[in-house]
This record gives sequence, C-alpha cells and structure tokens, in this order.
Amino acid sequence: MSSSRVTDASGGKALPTYADVEAAMGRLAGRVVRTPLLESPLLSERLGFRLLIKAEPLQRTGSFKIRGACNAIMLLDREARERGVVAYSSGNHAQGVAAAARLFGVRATIVMPDDAPRMKIEGTRAWGADVVLYDRRTGDREAIGVEIASRSGAEIIRPYDDARVAAGQGTVGLEIAEQVAAAGLRADTVVVPCGGGGLSAGIALALAEKSPETRLWTAEPEGFDDTARSLASGERVGNKPGAVSICDALLAPAPGELTLPILQRLAAGGVAASDAAVRLAMRTLFAQFKLVVEPGGAVALAALLDGRPVDHGDVVVCVSSGGNVDAALFAKMLDSQRA
Amino acid sequence: MSSSRVTDASGGKALPTYADVEAAMGRLAGRVVRTPLLESPLLSERLGFRLLIKAEPLQRTGSFKIRGACNAIMLLDREARERGVVAYSSGNHAQGVAAAARLFGVRATIVMPDDAPRMKIEGTRAWGADVVLYDRRTGDREAIGVEIASRSGAEIIRPYDDARVAAGQGTVGLEIAEQVAAAGLRADTVVVPCGGGGLSAGIALALAEKSPETRLWTAEPEGFDDTARSLASGERVGNKPGAVSICDALLAPAPGELTLPILQRLAAGGVAASDAAVRLAMRTLFAQFKLVVEPGGAVALAALLDGRPVDHGDVVVCVSSGGNVDAALFAKMLDSQRA
Repeated sequence: MSSSRVTDASGGKALPTYADVEAAMGRLAGRVVRTPLLESPLLSERLGFRLLIKAEPLQRTGSFKIRGACNAIMLLDREARERGVVAYSSGNHAQGVAAAARLFGVRATIVMPDDAPRMKIEGTRAWGADVVLYDRRTGDREAIGVEIASRSGAEIIRPYDDARVAAGQGTVGLEIAEQVAAAGLRADTVVVPCGGGGLSAGIALALAEKSPETRLWTAEPEGFDDTARSLASGERVGNKPGAVSICDALLAPAPGELTLPILQRLAAGGVAASDAAVRLAMRTLFAQFKLVVEPGGAVALAALLDGRPVDHGDVVVCVSSGGNVDAALFAKMLDSQRA
Repeated sequence: MSSSRVTDASGGKALPTYADVEAAMGRLAGRVVRTPLLESPLLSERLGFRLLIKAEPLQRTGSFKIRGACNAIMLLDREARERGVVAYSSGNHAQGVAAAARLFGVRATIVMPDDAPRMKIEGTRAWGADVVLYDRRTGDREAIGVEIASRSGAEIIRPYDDARVAAGQGTVGLEIAEQVAAAGLRADTVVVPCGGGGLSAGIALALAEKSPETRLWTAEPEGFDDTARSLASGERVGNKPGAVSICDALLAPAPGELTLPILQRLAAGGVAASDAAVRLAMRTLFAQFKLVVEPGGAVALAALLDGRPVDHGDVVVCVSSGGNVDAALFAKMLDSQRA
C-alpha cells in the first residue's frame, strides 16, 4: 500500500455521520463504561496548560474498541447474529469484538498475529472467542478473515473501515464534549492515537457537532505516520515497509477508506512520536495519573509532551486509548532510564 | 503502644458522626474527584461474585487522604488558617494536607520519615509544603509535630485521630453507597485498607446510614493487624515491635482513639494479608483494572483474593486507597514470579 493514490478513498461506501455517533451513544448506554477524564493539577501547572486524559484503559476489555464492536453487533439482525462474527486484529479490537459478541450470545472467531502481546491473545480467548493465529510476515489477515466468513456465513467486523465501528468509537468524543463542558471548560485541542483512524474519525464527527471550535489532531508512531502524511499531502498514502515501533496497536498499513475522508474534512492535522517519547508518556501516566497505558495508548500524550502540535491552546485533551500491555514490558518501561 | 489497654479509647474527645460525613460531602464537592467504581466482568465471573474496586489512586494526590485534609482545613477559621498547619505522615496524608493547604493558601509543614517512598516526599514538596525529615527508628514524629506547632501556632492535622479528618474520609463511603445503588446492586461486603482507621471509621459511618445491611471489614498487613486484634478482643491493642511489611502506608502502631470505638460499634471484623498476597493483588489490579495501586492500597483485595473474609456474599467492594508507589518497586512487583 506504499504511496498508493486513491482520489475517492471511500470507494463509494457510506461514511458514518454524526447521527450514527449519536445513535450509538444511546445504544451503548449501560453496556460500556463512561470513562473518567483525569487531570493532574501539578502536571498542568508545570506544563502551563490544562492537560486532561480520557482514560480508556478503564473501559471494559481495557480499550475503547468494545464501543465500536458493540455498536456493530447490535446493528446485526437475528439471522446475522446466529451466523456469528469474524474479526482480525492485533489485540484490542479482538477483545472488543469477543466481549461484545459474548454480551449478545454471538459466536466470534478472531484472526490474530502470533506475535501479539500474550495478554491480548489470552484476553480474547477468555471472552470465549475462537482465536486463529497467523504469521504477520507471511500471512494476510484480511484474506484469512474473508475465507472464514465465506465458509461460515459469519459477518466480518472490520477494525476501522466499518461505519458502525467508527460511529461506536465516536462515543468517546461525545463523552469528552460533555465532560469538558461539565468541568466548565472549552477544549482547544484533542489529540487522538491513530491506527486506521476509526477512533479519530468518530471523535471528529462528535466534536464537529458538539464542540466545533476544538481542533482535532491524530497521533501516530514515527514510521507509521500514514495518516499525518495523507492529511498533509491530500492523498491517501501508506507506510514504508520495514518500520518498527513499540506501539503494537497502531501498525495499520494505511488510513482507512472510510475514515480518511472524514479526517480530511475535520482534522487539523497529524503528529507523530518516537518510541522514546512513548516510554516517557507511559511513565508520566503511571506517576501522575496512576494509569496503566499501553504504548499505542500513550502516543497522543507522547507527541504532546514532545511539543506537537505546537499551537495547542490552553485546554488539551489527550485520549489514552488502551492499557493492554504485558507486565514484563510495562516493568521494562518503568525501569528505563532513557527519556 | 504494645498491648496497651484503654477502656474508653476516645479519651473523652468527640467522635465524628454521620452528620459530619454528610457535611464533608457538601464541603468537598468540586474540590476532590468522585472516583469511579470499577469492575472486571471476567474476574467477577472467575471469582463467582461481583467484585467492585473503589479507585482512590485516581483521586487528587493519588490517595483518599486529600478528602480528610481538605475537610479539616475548610473547618479552620481565618486566624487559624493564617497560622498554618502541621502534619506527620509516611506520605499520603502528607500529600493530602499539602495539596489541601495549597488550595486555601495555607502554609503547611509536614514531618515525614526519611525512608518514605521518594515519590511521596517529592510529591509533598511539589505541592509547596515544607518537609521535615526524621529517622523512624530514633525520632518521634508526633513530638516533632507538637514542637513545631507550639513554636509557630500552627494547627496539627492528625492523620486519623481527628474527627474532621475521619469525616472527610467517610465521603468515600457515601460515594460507594451511591455508586453501588446506581448500578442496581446492594453491597454485601466492603473491605477497607486500615492503618489508624480514619478511612474505615468514616466509611463505616456512611454505610451504617446509607447501606446498613452492608458488612464492613478492615484489612491490614500481617504483623500490623492491631485493628483486627482489637476488634476481636474488645480491647485496644498495639502491634508487636519488629514486624515488617511492604505496606508503607499502613504501619500505624495502634488503632486510633477516635476511630476504634466507631469500628467496635459498626465493623464486622478485621482481616490481614501477607506481603505475597499484596503483590498478587497489585498484579491483579494492574492486569484486570489497569490501575497503579501501592502496596497498602492493595491490602483489601489481597485479603479477599486470599479468602478473607470468608462469608462475603455476592457483591463485594474493595477500596483501593492509593497509588503512590515508586516506579522501581512497582516494576519489581510486576516482574515477581512469586504468588
């Protein structure tokens, strides 16, 4: 997908709208956690602006992904639910689909890379899903998913290129708008970890309606900044092969076909952060917020602490999207002396 | 204080009442965080009962202590506020008093042991307090505090034997009662980490009024189970010298004079947990709840996972009272292979 050019990225598929996000909000009420918006007054003072953390590690399954998965499964009719669902994911969408499927008694098969964090694989199995492992270097997870779906009649729940999924993730944005207003504040900037763009696009739809003066930035790991470059160039471009990052949740090869057009219309731009900045952000979230955040979930704060975006204003919300990190890796991050 | 016997433990001082807790709730609104009540559905399923975690690491200053400190300082008149406050604490009460004092522009001097966790000492200084260090083996923190108070006219804010402080901590109990009811549940058991008993006594007052069918148990580290033994024997007994525990926040020598009479009237009893059980609880809170909890803050869950109290019913709330733990120690806990 390196440097491919797609003028009409959506390929004619219907894009999610604000109305879809609002409908998802009603659908998910009582089924997902309304996660808190946290602040460390001392850190805000040191930074010189108000920093608020939207704490999705405290979400059911340890990441925001259950929001989109739950919305998608609730929109299936009875027959489709009986045929089951299939998903491919490095771990958080896997657990989200597995947990949502279980809520509604739907059978779930999840295709996962065999080098995914152990706790993500175990978590997916714990929710009762069938896990099919593949080799990330040689296998094609989408092809495996399509094959399983065509054999069983199960519905594929894509991790971001699915309007139902992106609309569900957008409920994070509605909660942010409500919580910031309840605190008597106005968010100048919201920074969102971005893989395929489902969370970013969903939040963008919510903020455009509920907080139109807020600027949304996507945050990606260095080497996987396909969304930032696509937004800057106006063309859908993918990542160069061979890049590596500790952010296992954010290794999507290119922006989504449904999500990029929304971000092109509504996002201020994209920023990227190094692995070293991600480690520092994880330690900051540990020490100042008492929160366990996985590498990909810390990338928005990582970019911000590293000075990007530059013009962020006085009230900044960083989404911490997930906390599914193996204990050994987390311990290593804490012990690390490198910034 | 080993095995001392005090028939009228309160020594004639006025005990806090439910009305004091309710008044504190109004006073603290908007000044402290209403911390979430978290659940891991998979863990509840595995345990066979609903386990809810009251997450005070997400409180301002990283522990519940700011509640009592803030209530006490708000009850000082203008002249007293101008003379400042003094506190002695191993770290969480220190940070709570320092942060509360700063909220109201009050000067705070805090007496801390020189072997307190570094982040607690640094946190106390970061809130602007003057820190006076002493040697835990040779010094008497209470005497040092009294000396400073008599010299400066500052008011001593005791960590638990202060009706204003215990009433403030009791707001945790009011929130638990409201949150459990909002979830459509009834709490059978609440387990509370216990040092001097301010948090336990405050919560006991709240629950006796708002959820009288709920049984409250205190949880202490093994070797520091003075409250459990005092409740069992009917007499106020202290800890034997020489015990050690990783729970630095819970090393009070004996139950409080104001708190024990309340617990004698309202608590079901006390349980204790080993350091190994505390380590397991910290890892469980990391993996299942994405929460950073310090050793003392994990002792309630530690006892529960270890089977105490035995007869806990179907809905159990464990209070996780704080998350102020140095990164190196937390990393060691995560890496530990010992249960």
